[in-house]
Amino acid sequence: MSTTISDEIHEHLEPSLPPSSPNGHNGSEDAASGIVYRVAQYVPRRSWRTWLIGRHLATADAPHQTIGKAIGLAVFASDALSSTAYATQEILAILAAAGAAALVYAFPISLAIILLLVIVSVSYEQTIHAYPGGGGAYIVARDNLGELPAQTAGAALLTDYILTVSVSVSSGVAQIASAFPALAPWRVPLAVGMVIVIMLINLRGVKESGLAFAIPTYFFVVIMFLTVGFGLLRYVTGGLGLVPNPPPITAGTAAVSVVGLFLLLHAFSSGTAALTGIEAISNGITAFKEPRSHNAGITLMWMSGILGSLFLAITFLSGQIHAVPSDQETVISQLARTVLGGRNFLYLATIGATTLILIMAANTAFADFPRLSALHAGDGFLPRQLTYRGSRLVYSRGIVVLAVIASLMIIVFNASVTALIPLYAIGVFLSFSLSQLGMARRWWKIGHMKPGEEVREPGSTLRYAPGWQWKLCVNALGSASTFVVMVIFAITKFRDGAWIILVLVPTLVFIFFRIHHHYRDLAKSLSLDDYGAPPAIRRHRVIVPISGVHRGSLAALDYARSLSPDVTAVHISVDAAEAEKLQEKWEQWGNGVRLVILESPYRLLLEPLLGYVEHIAELRQPAEVITIVVPEFVPKHWWTRLLHTQTAVLLRLALAFRRGIVVTDVPYQLDC
Amino acid sequence: MSTTISDEIHEHLEPSLPPSSPNGHNGSEDAASGIVYRVAQYVPRRSWRTWLIGRHLATADAPHQTIGKAIGLAVFASDALSSTAYATQEILAILAAAGAAALVYAFPISLAIILLLVIVSVSYEQTIHAYPGGGGAYIVARDNLGELPAQTAGAALLTDYILTVSVSVSSGVAQIASAFPALAPWRVPLAVGMVIVIMLINLRGVKESGLAFAIPTYFFVVIMFLTVGFGLLRYVTGGLGLVPNPPPITAGTAAVSVVGLFLLLHAFSSGTAALTGIEAISNGITAFKEPRSHNAGITLMWMSGILGSLFLAITFLSGQIHAVPSDQETVISQLARTVLGGRNFLYLATIGATTLILIMAANTAFADFPRLSALHAGDGFLPRQLTYRGSRLVYSRGIVVLAVIASLMIIVFNASVTALIPLYAIGVFLSFSLSQLGMARRWWKIGHMKPGEEVREPGSTLRYAPGWQWKLCVNALGSASTFVVMVIFAITKFRDGAWIILVLVPTLVFIFFRIHHHYRDLAKSLSLDDYGAPPAIRRHRVIVPISGVHRGSLAALDYARSLSPDVTAVHISVDAAEAEKLQEKWEQWGNGVRLVILESPYRLLLEPLLGYVEHIAELRQPAEVITIVVPEFVPKHWWTRLLHTQTAVLLRLALAFRRGIVVTDVPYQLDC
Repeated sequence: MSTTISDEIHEHLEPSLPPSSPNGHNGSEDAASGIVYRVAQYVPRRSWRTWLIGRHLATADAPHQTIGKAIGLAVFASDALSSTAYATQEILAILAAAGAAALVYAFPISLAIILLLVIVSVSYEQTIHAYPGGGGAYIVARDNLGELPAQTAGAALLTDYILTVSVSVSSGVAQIASAFPALAPWRVPLAVGMVIVIMLINLRGVKESGLAFAIPTYFFVVIMFLTVGFGLLRYVTGGLGLVPNPPPITAGTAAVSVVGLFLLLHAFSSGTAALTGIEAISNGITAFKEPRSHNAGITLMWMSGILGSLFLAITFLSGQIHAVPSDQETVISQLARTVLGGRNFLYLATIGATTLILIMAANTAFADFPRLSALHAGDGFLPRQLTYRGSRLVYSRGIVVLAVIASLMIIVFNASVTALIPLYAIGVFLSFSLSQLGMARRWWKIGHMKPGEEVREPGSTLRYAPGWQWKLCVNALGSASTFVVMVIFAITKFRDGAWIILVLVPTLVFIFFRIHHHYRDLAKSLSLDDYGAPPAIRRHRVIVPISGVHRGSLAALDYARSLSPDVTAVHISVDAAEAEKLQEKWEQWGNGVRLVILESPYRLLLEPLLGYVEHIAELRQPAEVITIVVPEFVPKHWWTRLLHTQTAVLLRLALAFRRGIVVTDVPYQLDC
Repeated sequence: MSTTISDEIHEHLEPSLPPSSPNGHNGSEDAASGIVYRVAQYVPRRSWRTWLIGRHLATADAPHQTIGKAIGLAVFASDALSSTAYATQEILAILAAAGAAALVYAFPISLAIILLLVIVSVSYEQTIHAYPGGGGAYIVARDNLGELPAQTAGAALLTDYILTVSVSVSSGVAQIASAFPALAPWRVPLAVGMVIVIMLINLRGVKESGLAFAIPTYFFVVIMFLTVGFGLLRYVTGGLGLVPNPPPITAGTAAVSVVGLFLLLHAFSSGTAALTGIEAISNGITAFKEPRSHNAGITLMWMSGILGSLFLAITFLSGQIHAVPSDQETVISQLARTVLGGRNFLYLATIGATTLILIMAANTAFADFPRLSALHAGDGFLPRQLTYRGSRLVYSRGIVVLAVIASLMIIVFNASVTALIPLYAIGVFLSFSLSQLGMARRWWKIGHMKPGEEVREPGSTLRYAPGWQWKLCVNALGSASTFVVMVIFAITKFRDGAWIILVLVPTLVFIFFRIHHHYRDLAKSLSLDDYGAPPAIRRHRVIVPISGVHRGSLAALDYARSLSPDVTAVHISVDAAEAEKLQEKWEQWGNGVRLVILESPYRLLLEPLLGYVEHIAELRQPAEVITIVVPEFVPKHWWTRLLHTQTAVLLRLALAFRRGIVVTDVPYQLDC
């Protein structure tokens, strides 16, 4: 791993490249023979990045491992299960606007959410069987509904992955601050620090060794079932009691005087955050052992079961102990210290497990967001750079983009889960609805096929199946109910921030299509089909702008003269005396090259030069190219660069759109 | 003014440039003849900038006007006189820390400041006579004390000009907010907006038509004398009374229980802000009519007289009416409404005049800062770009730099004069002290000359003068007293913010010298003295990195082949299948050019290419240059640029420090 490029290239290349001789042109015969050399592999050097994110991994190192149901549950459930850490509290936060008495409505609302969970789970189970190669909303919508719905689903999901990170990390920090109130003023920096750590771990690349996932997930599941189980036991035996020293109530929005339908729907919307992450398994079916659809389906059912019962139990117990929504202490913390009898070791373990599962959930988004954006980029709807896998075989750019945007969200919304929730979940439900609409469409197509017929689509294969009507109904119900939830969400939370997503998603879709059209047009304008090669370049006109006669400008002049005999040096004169001196020096050092002095009484530098170049360009003949050779100092230190005007950069920008004009800068390395 | 460059160049150049013929090289004989063409003047086109800051002014348009004493007072006094608007209040703000009873010490403190004013004025009067060509602290220190003191004085003055803008504009906004309390919450945006307007006016260029200065300055002087005169009259007749409904007191720093020496010195320091701007006339002596030193000296005395009497009267009356320092209403406003009997028309006129003179003071800094920084830049202690005069003959870059930094200061210090004052004045007194020390040194030199002897220095001429001992004493006293004031200021206000300046000024001086050394070394390494021309370039090796075979890369290839017969195309392969396809296409389109494929199993793009280039560079012979021709797409829209990796930019950065390697990008203009 330690040989460097030059050694290797030397070995492989040396015999093929003939030594060049002083007459200067003997390489040509060889070049004309058109041999294709294949040069050895390039092995990167180690640097500070190696220390930070690990050594480079070769493309061939990509792992191909599959996992069973138990590990699968651990890997994919963290996002879904972690939402139990805040869903109950967010329901309470909305209800609190109508006074403490309104908090009793939390439990019936959670029952409605459980019903929705059942519908969505059953509906997704069908997707898992239909798309054994991975049935994310983007793929299902693309195959069955077309590009617009697919891009919409993708945009919604990408937004949501960002919010998963912001919400989960903010909630995790809120748990820590509940246990250690002294940390409360540092919530924002703590949360951003956490995002950075998760980013670095993901840039290193998370080995999909299930164990790393299994420990925190099962730790959380076990300890939460212990806590709620113990709580229910104390409830049955009548010894549960109320929260001792409850924190002050923080209501989500402006107080309302009565409990109306709007308030209940508003609280319900907040609670639907519990369903986020349920789609994770359908994205990752290929990770499962064969029969993978079967295994993935069973895992989904287990996950929904655990999620539903935990959520219900937490909401029920919170009601019994009169837990209140507060930005000083989370509901989970109130529940744990009430049930477990104070801030003891078990309490700390519960808070620790909750924080850990929230961090795991954020980590999931760090796997999903880059993968989905690479999928978009591969289809040409996002910058192609996002398909580039970094040194550790991960989509590094997507990871960094996610970390930056999620951190900004945390800063803007002050690490408050309650402030972030109105932006969250709406995208999830939009993508749920679209993917299940796609599934319904798929059953419709299947129902109209002949038995035995097969149609291959990019993501799956369509085969006639009896009972398609029933399956169509399930998916249609899933699609319709999630659509309704999305509309409720958008209306009740519009003013709290949902409007941001309602503006953002269409904007993103519009941008995606603009990008797509650009790439399509690019391919067309670069295509070699029906390409008649233009006449070869036969003549260079070279222009050398000079500010003075010195070693730097003479180096550029030398280079210019090696390109063509037709060289013109141009000096923009803002000071007649200086131009006079320059002319004298030119006679001594100019090597007979033509010098043009452009007087600029208005002290402009770039504009007269551009005018001159454009004038010369008009006189140009076909097969003639104008090359502008710009002398450029390269100071030794970065800061001294600021002391020099970057003429070449400005010229290149100004001339980029002119055909047949090439800007070359000849660097002159300074010792200072 | 409407002919464009191409018309003019066409006229003048056409006969001299022979039409080039298709054989491509007939320009060479002509080029070899080394004719120097002189091309017509470039007249810029009009654009949005014309509308904003006016049409371009030619260098020859620079005005050469001189002014008399009355106008001279108006032009140069605004900075000094405007400080009466806040100096009294800042004394009171410090005293208030020891309770309202301590405010009575303001008047004796102001007497001490008047004494200092007299010393400084007399001392500066001598500078005016010694430096009829302009005796700013920078020039006096440079000529008499050397570079280090000169740069220190300059750095102190530059800092102070920035603070003049911040303090004056903040105080101006405070006056407005006193008259219209509804505007109070908008102080910061109002102040920044004001800075931007002053910047635009200065970018247009202030015609030094004295009238524009005379009206606001004399308006202020007349109305302030009316107000304080009326106040004194009411005092004498016993009908003055106290401030009705005084605003709440805002104390400057933490409360102290007794009036001690530290508190009095602290308050004195704040009051010395009244002296800022006194140096303005000595900078601008050349603007006066002959005998200019005489006229300038008399103007200085008038200015000091007006400043002193206004300051004394304001402080006295403020004490009598029990005016209090407050961030809700300025002392000037309290004084005006008490004396003038309410918020009537005369009151508004007083506030308006005060605001206007403060804006004029800020405007003065916009003339001084760019001029002084151009002086530094001309001596090579600041970036040379600062000597460049923009389209309107003003040092546009200095103006913009000043506006940006002053606005930042306003934002950081929340437009609070009391918060800004501890940073202010310390630089002024440092430069006062240095310039007067320089004058003392000058008298010492003069005293040791023979009668009749003359020594020419850049800024002035030394001639023996009798009575030099007396003059030396005056300047030495001026230098010593301002030095003591500076030390008092630095100690008493150290924790309030003066430490910032004590760190900043030495840092600036260090940077100035680093810049100076860079320019000196640059001149040395570009010098053509003992320059043995290196062997002329005789051979090009051309490397064309390609990502695919398409119209863009073929255009670059065509350009490369026109430079040299020794061309190698290099493809970095991260995907073997893609490399295979590229090779096939190359056989059809590659024109027989050698293709090298570098496999990059670690998916790096730039590093293998750099490694290859460095390897080739090692094989290179003298008089051989490596040119890397990079195909570059030029998308039609700026945003589509983001969708393409800027390989050429990265390559150029990475190779800038390698000698004999030139990077050229061949733009390929896209239609999308």
